[in-house]
Amino acid sequence: MGSWKYEDKERDIVISSRIRLARNIKGMPFPILLPEHKARLLVDLIFNCLEKDESLGTEFTKIEVGRVGNNERRVLVEKHLTSPELGSNKCAAVFINKNEDISIMANEEDHVRIQCIQEGFQLHKTYEMANAVDDVLEKCVDFAYHEKYGYLTACPTNVGTGMRASVMLHLPSLTLNNQINTMIVTLAKFGLTIRGIYGEGTQALGDLYQISNQNTLGMTERELIENLHDVAREIIKKEREHRYEILNTNRIYLEDKIYRAFGVLSNARSINAEESMKLLSLVRLGSDLELIDQDIGTINDLMVNIQPGILSGIYGGDLTEIDRDRIRAEHIRKFLKSE
Amino acid sequence: MGSWKYEDKERDIVISSRIRLARNIKGMPFPILLPEHKARLLVDLIFNCLEKDESLGTEFTKIEVGRVGNNERRVLVEKHLTSPELGSNKCAAVFINKNEDISIMANEEDHVRIQCIQEGFQLHKTYEMANAVDDVLEKCVDFAYHEKYGYLTACPTNVGTGMRASVMLHLPSLTLNNQINTMIVTLAKFGLTIRGIYGEGTQALGDLYQISNQNTLGMTERELIENLHDVAREIIKKEREHRYEILNTNRIYLEDKIYRAFGVLSNARSINAEESMKLLSLVRLGSDLELIDQDIGTINDLMVNIQPGILSGIYGGDLTEIDRDRIRAEHIRKFLKSE
Repeated sequence: MGSWKYEDKERDIVISSRIRLARNIKGMPFPILLPEHKARLLVDLIFNCLEKDESLGTEFTKIEVGRVGNNERRVLVEKHLTSPELGSNKCAAVFINKNEDISIMANEEDHVRIQCIQEGFQLHKTYEMANAVDDVLEKCVDFAYHEKYGYLTACPTNVGTGMRASVMLHLPSLTLNNQINTMIVTLAKFGLTIRGIYGEGTQALGDLYQISNQNTLGMTERELIENLHDVAREIIKKEREHRYEILNTNRIYLEDKIYRAFGVLSNARSINAEESMKLLSLVRLGSDLELIDQDIGTINDLMVNIQPGILSGIYGGDLTEIDRDRIRAEHIRKFLKSE
Repeated sequence: MGSWKYEDKERDIVISSRIRLARNIKGMPFPILLPEHKARLLVDLIFNCLEKDESLGTEFTKIEVGRVGNNERRVLVEKHLTSPELGSNKCAAVFINKNEDISIMANEEDHVRIQCIQEGFQLHKTYEMANAVDDVLEKCVDFAYHEKYGYLTACPTNVGTGMRASVMLHLPSLTLNNQINTMIVTLAKFGLTIRGIYGEGTQALGDLYQISNQNTLGMTERELIENLHDVAREIIKKEREHRYEILNTNRIYLEDKIYRAFGVLSNARSINAEESMKLLSLVRLGSDLELIDQDIGTINDLMVNIQPGILSGIYGGDLTEIDRDRIRAEHIRKFLKSE
């Protein structure tokens, strides 16, 4: 437990920590083969279970994903509360608590997917949360578990712990110095993988990367977390080294990049999400290095709130792309501090 | 004379008006064939003539171009006080008055080149100035003049009036709308030509263009000026039409371009002259259209003072390119108003 108490100290680089547990009900076909009425029953079963529980100390809202508008569905994905795939499944639902740090998907690839998220480097705490949710659900349902293989899942890659632990890291200097490709190779050796912020196959917007365990079998949850934790710590160290290297050898270059990014963000009248993320990443780096006086929390919020769905949600529903780009620029100008 | 009094009203588009008169001394070989001691005599002759004159109401400084440093020579060119070619000629000199609106080159391509420059659209006034200088010199020397061909010059393209009249125009909207190439063709029909700001073969930095008469023969000075004047007035009208067209049909696009330019200029920590000119051009356009609150005079000054030689001169001599780019960024930040 020794290292746990220091977890929280890496917020300059670690945006968030997440745990996902995949679970399936014993004796019930996987969602892809599940008849609709049984899928509905499953949603009710989970909801009732969460409703009567008091141990988690929080209430859950049920959202039936097939019944909400396109933008609301987009918002759920952008907030990482559901997966992009969930929307396409019949009877798919998600249960979300008030803080939006627990979400439980029903009828995704697996019957149940428990997701917990915390700001900063808090893998162990996040795991405890997910574990607590798992315990609550186990009071109501029997999860399919094989003595040798562990939890059974629709996709074999999740068999075992059914757990995916991940950290979202801000790696602008490793990106600037073209270190990401080398990192991919190294991470694979540790059974880890690196992705963009919206999961598999997505681009690394704003130099944000998710690093997570590839394997779910052959190690305990705690071992998997310790492994990810240790490797993430190495990456954080490397990112920091590269930051100071650029700062020491090429300060003007770095300052110029950061202030130009700030200049465009605080003056543009129209900007898309991709460019915003790229520039916010630089300002975030500048703030971390105390080269520019901007609040990291504000930058983190902006990185979330300028996403198309969330932004449209804030400013009243479906917007055209042109309007959204204009409103995004206004939104950023409102929240960035003038220098 | 009717239109003259309105000349001064176009400073949003006309940066400056210039007149150059090429003259050669009767019975003396052109500079390319002139022995050194005679070239020196010529310089003294012109200087004495200017020194004893009182009609121009200004004093002249003599600069022997071969004796000054590289940067000082560069500054003279950037300020349009000498031509880029003058530096390479032995015994080349320039006489400059205090306001720097009269400069007289000796031993350039011709024995004497009188140059006058005024801010804004003041071709006629500028011509009167050049004419007055011409009169002063004619009191001391006999200029080679042929009854049929007019003033004789080293290059046949200058024979006749020996005059090149030009206006420097800021044409960002015609540039944005890709109208410059069409304009080149039209101008040729009027015996006019269009160039970048440092003369033949130079790039149009900052959307600034020099328009001048191609022909010097077959028309009087006043006719040549009237022709340039009328065509320039048409171009000014077109530029203004295009400005309002972009403004009316695509205001956000234009505002975005202008404010991003301002954002970069007011935040960059390193910037070269070419990019500076491009961005200053947009801010100048924004100021003209009252989309941004920046002083046109300041922008005009910046467009001159960020040139490599002038900037180095202001900040103390020869600078490396890296230092110059850094100092240029500082200089621009100091003079631009924060929004």
